[in-house]
Amino acid sequence: MSSITLAQAHKVIEAASAKATEIGVPMNVAVVDAGNNLTAFHRQDGAWLGSIDIAQGKAYTARAFDMPTKDLAPEAQPGGSLYGIEASNDGRIIVFAGGIPIADGDEVVGAIGVSGGTVDQDQEVAEAGVAAYIA
Amino acid sequence: MSSITLAQAHKVIEAASAKATEIGVPMNVAVVDAGNNLTAFHRQDGAWLGSIDIAQGKAYTARAFDMPTKDLAPEAQPGGSLYGIEASNDGRIIVFAGGIPIADGDEVVGAIGVSGGTVDQDQEVAEAGVAAYIA
Amino acid sequence: MSSITLAQAHKVIEAASAKATEIGVPMNVAVVDAGNNLTAFHRQDGAWLGSIDIAQGKAYTARAFDMPTKDLAPEAQPGGSLYGIEASNDGRIIVFAGGIPIADGDEVVGAIGVSGGTVDQDQEVAEAGVAAYIA
Amino acid sequence: MSSITLAQAHKVIEAASAKATEIGVPMNVAVVDAGNNLTAFHRQDGAWLGSIDIAQGKAYTARAFDMPTKDLAPEAQPGGSLYGIEASNDGRIIVFAGGIPIADGDEVVGAIGVSGGTVDQDQEVAEAGVAAYIA
Repeated sequence: MSSITLAQAHKVIEAASAKATEIGVPMNVAVVDAGNNLTAFHRQDGAWLGSIDIAQGKAYTARAFDMPTKDLAPEAQPGGSLYGIEASNDGRIIVFAGGIPIADGDEVVGAIGVSGGTVDQDQEVAEAGVAAYIA
Repeated sequence: MSSITLAQAHKVIEAASAKATEIGVPMNVAVVDAGNNLTAFHRQDGAWLGSIDIAQGKAYTARAFDMPTKDLAPEAQPGGSLYGIEASNDGRIIVFAGGIPIADGDEVVGAIGVSGGTVDQDQEVAEAGVAAYIA
Repeated sequence: MSSITLAQAHKVIEAASAKATEIGVPMNVAVVDAGNNLTAFHRQDGAWLGSIDIAQGKAYTARAFDMPTKDLAPEAQPGGSLYGIEASNDGRIIVFAGGIPIADGDEVVGAIGVSGGTVDQDQEVAEAGVAAYIA
Repeated sequence: MSSITLAQAHKVIEAASAKATEIGVPMNVAVVDAGNNLTAFHRQDGAWLGSIDIAQGKAYTARAFDMPTKDLAPEAQPGGSLYGIEASNDGRIIVFAGGIPIADGDEVVGAIGVSGGTVDQDQEVAEAGVAAYIA
């Protein structure tokens, strides 16, 4: 299994943080590796305290199901095919935007999770992080 | 970072409790500091036992996201952008009214959480507490 | 069942806090009622953050077994008759000094838990709190 | 209350990581702020997975009691005055070396926690991190 390294994760976090600074919203940013274990986490000064857990949860969820957490959101709603999924995995599942898998070609090597703003802001910052990944 | 003191928290709780007495509904009232750690808690005689945890959760949530829990309520509903958020933060997130940040100018120094009545009553009592905060 | 009131608990906490101030060690002080539910909690400015949970745990434990937590300590040690007891009750059991039942005659009406210094200091402050209880 | 910033925490982690590289043992390094909330975490490539949680627990514990976790170790042993303390604080207490408070003069502004080697190695790496803190 290929997995993101700390050096790669650090670059991802730096790129995400730069985007957060650009849009003026301090963010919590987490990166997990291919084994879904925390590799790195940064909380920008003033970022929401409640988002420390959520950023990590988004990264965990994105790797847990190898899909953006944004795509889980509709299925986790009442009537959706995955309704109730957030009760699994010891409370680490987050079903709204901001978590994205990081892939090297077809292989998922980790994931990023961002929390601190609106879900659209979180998603934008997470995308900036993923874009900075170099295999 | 500035943080609420015990003496300040006590005044906040006394003011909230006075309002609760005025409207005739015994309340649980909690105050957390800037680091989101419990500073003081009072349960008025006869207040709901299940609200001991909820009052603390509301204070925690208000500081976790630096906003009134009332404002989280619509977004946490089915179809809302934060649906499922209460599964995060180890069960400490409460997504209905009664939790309000306490600020010194622009800086959040703590939060109050109130539980024991209807959400409107909880909110009214929490507001009375916040109004008594003196920086 | 008789139970300590908030007003009585408040007096207990004030007396304990005065003793803590006298010995120069900021303390966390919790009081539970006869139903072993939290009635009041105060953290003095600068008191250990890790003792927020421990003070509440000591009060809970003292009421849980209607004995000072100090008396549980030897029995909870390896070889003791209650070895392992701290794994019960969802992590709320504390098996060292600082928790004391509060009684009205023969009837336990609540308990105090103190944490923030050495166990001897915690015990001294808890005793000052209990002494201030007036049925 | 003053608190460590992300930039300061990052320098602390970099210094600790450099020491870990020097002694040839990959480490997990965590830094919490004055409110005992996670500020930054890095896992060096190949560091023990089980130490992700322990590093964070050591940082948490060092700030929880404003003392090195090394100093808690003897008291937490069977027969010690704090035997059983690791059952408190929801499993976040670690009672062996590798966690150290970070202070600005007399004021604790955060803490570092290191895990990945022997406790002596963890302690050495944590000390290298603390030494790099600049107020």
